[in-house]
Amino acid sequence: MIVAEQKNSIISVIYNKDHISLLDQRLLPQKMEYVRLSTINDVWHAIHQLQVRGAPAIGIAAAFGLALWANHWQSSDLPSFLKALHRAKSQLASSRPTAVNLFWALARVVDQAKRASSVREAKILIEKEALEIQAEDEEICRRIGEHGLTLFSDEQNIMTICNAGSIATARYGTALAPFYLAKEAGWNLHIYACETRPLLQGARLTTWELQQADIDVTLITDNMAAHTMRTKNIDAVIVGCDRVAKNGDVANKIGTFGLALQAKSLHIPFYVAAPLSTFDFQTLTGEEIPIEERADEEVSHIGQIATAPANTKVFNPAFDITPASYITAFITEHGIFAPDNLEKLIELKTKERST
Amino acid sequence: MIVAEQKNSIISVIYNKDHISLLDQRLLPQKMEYVRLSTINDVWHAIHQLQVRGAPAIGIAAAFGLALWANHWQSSDLPSFLKALHRAKSQLASSRPTAVNLFWALARVVDQAKRASSVREAKILIEKEALEIQAEDEEICRRIGEHGLTLFSDEQNIMTICNAGSIATARYGTALAPFYLAKEAGWNLHIYACETRPLLQGARLTTWELQQADIDVTLITDNMAAHTMRTKNIDAVIVGCDRVAKNGDVANKIGTFGLALQAKSLHIPFYVAAPLSTFDFQTLTGEEIPIEERADEEVSHIGQIATAPANTKVFNPAFDITPASYITAFITEHGIFAPDNLEKLIELKTKERST
Repeated sequence: MIVAEQKNSIISVIYNKDHISLLDQRLLPQKMEYVRLSTINDVWHAIHQLQVRGAPAIGIAAAFGLALWANHWQSSDLPSFLKALHRAKSQLASSRPTAVNLFWALARVVDQAKRASSVREAKILIEKEALEIQAEDEEICRRIGEHGLTLFSDEQNIMTICNAGSIATARYGTALAPFYLAKEAGWNLHIYACETRPLLQGARLTTWELQQADIDVTLITDNMAAHTMRTKNIDAVIVGCDRVAKNGDVANKIGTFGLALQAKSLHIPFYVAAPLSTFDFQTLTGEEIPIEERADEEVSHIGQIATAPANTKVFNPAFDITPASYITAFITEHGIFAPDNLEKLIELKTKERST
Repeated sequence: MIVAEQKNSIISVIYNKDHISLLDQRLLPQKMEYVRLSTINDVWHAIHQLQVRGAPAIGIAAAFGLALWANHWQSSDLPSFLKALHRAKSQLASSRPTAVNLFWALARVVDQAKRASSVREAKILIEKEALEIQAEDEEICRRIGEHGLTLFSDEQNIMTICNAGSIATARYGTALAPFYLAKEAGWNLHIYACETRPLLQGARLTTWELQQADIDVTLITDNMAAHTMRTKNIDAVIVGCDRVAKNGDVANKIGTFGLALQAKSLHIPFYVAAPLSTFDFQTLTGEEIPIEERADEEVSHIGQIATAPANTKVFNPAFDITPASYITAFITEHGIFAPDNLEKLIELKTKERST
């Protein structure tokens, strides 16, 4: 059963005490290759060079990076261990300066080490905490998948964008989690993956990941979404997300807002899969969320190939904001919530903070 | 004045009695190069190899191909000339077997030749008719541009998809015609061109063509349309089209339907620019229009580069249907028409047929 499950979804970060096996996402879909990370420097480079992507997966890799580092530590002097641990934490934190999960995971691990009364105990607590971060994320994703599954049924056609998948998290992913759970339940869902220009995460990663699990997936270009919704009887759209504001507005990969508009016009439910950690109740509305604009070349080129005249003016927002009114429901590890009914999540978040 | 106008929009097919200068659209945007076509075989290859694209431009090139052929004819025996002319027509007609404008233009030229009482007169009539087809198309496009212009004003932001431009017609294009007329009027329109996957006609051709005329153009990927509409204050969307059914449903490049849905949701007018020849009142609704599906590789690859795992399942419709209810108005050479008010166009079309 466990073997079948492991076949069912790719695990991108695997801890082995003296090394981490990391799926090199840069090589996908051409090559599926795990690299061996033996030192904290290896982990730093892997995060920095985007061999691992997806906020939860980055946090997990960094936490294991500290565990690797601790396992290499020789002396039994606790104060010097803790001092060096802080340096190791700072080093790893500099690998992707904007990834919130990275800082959060590193802080969690270091906080545990501080409770130790010996280096030996600290090493055990660090490893335990890193494994717990991974296990918790897997559990959260699995619950999102289970709740999501209640919204779907066998043989449905479902559309998604980007890659909110197993390889971006501990396992299962967020938006893709229900697809893995459906597979475990013996259902045949039919997934339509938008290629997700400019960086093609849908084409490169989502198709690959779902194929590994033998889940039926069809690739379309982003501008085929509306025609596909209409002619292929799409039953639902499900996406991941980067941040949810207090009013239910969602920031996610560019293209999400367009899909939401099209789904609403065609009376197709539009679901956002997100763990509680993605809800940011300090941000009141989507208007407050800054949208990163990225390099022109991502749009004017594909790989090394220019698709437009040199010096063509480009607009390249990496994310967009989908107003709450276009969202049918949020799928979280705590259940399913309409965008105008987030009180329980606010309560849970407040409770989490105060513990 | 004429020089300024010629600078203002690219002419892709130029007739010079002993040869045709043809803009090689395959080389765009990397190279702007006119090839010299001296024989009917040259013209056949140019059409077949897609050096010229856009239904009107193909028809014009083919008509000039017959003129070139006629200019090379030596004998003065009319019956043998006409017999050979039919063979030449059949040859050119085989260059792109599905392009309706191609057959229509060739037939028009041959019909004129049949009225001649000598080879000399036939040659004159053929050349005259070919030039007239080009001049008429330019006039039609210019009128579409003039009518379109009444819907816009200086400094507006307008979105388009694919390339319904000057290089696809005699001059000016259909959807892009108002932009050239605006330029002539001294206006600054700000155009947002969707790149138009899979074949990237927006990125490769529309940006290039508008840049040649010094018209402000910004490239976006197709999935950025909704976010761009909202954040860049898009005032209108304008597209060309391949066929209009009697009820006002429109077949056009894939992505058009999605843009129309998004524009309607965001209360942005959605215009379809189309000459009367594109209205097909024999087709009652869009449901009757078959949608061509093309090769998987167009979606799973960009140029020679695979963007998805080998053997990924692909859906690749080349066109979509936009229901009339999403169209604000049609812009034609005869004026502007709401989709539920096409009676005058039906009348004009009937009159055209009976003359």
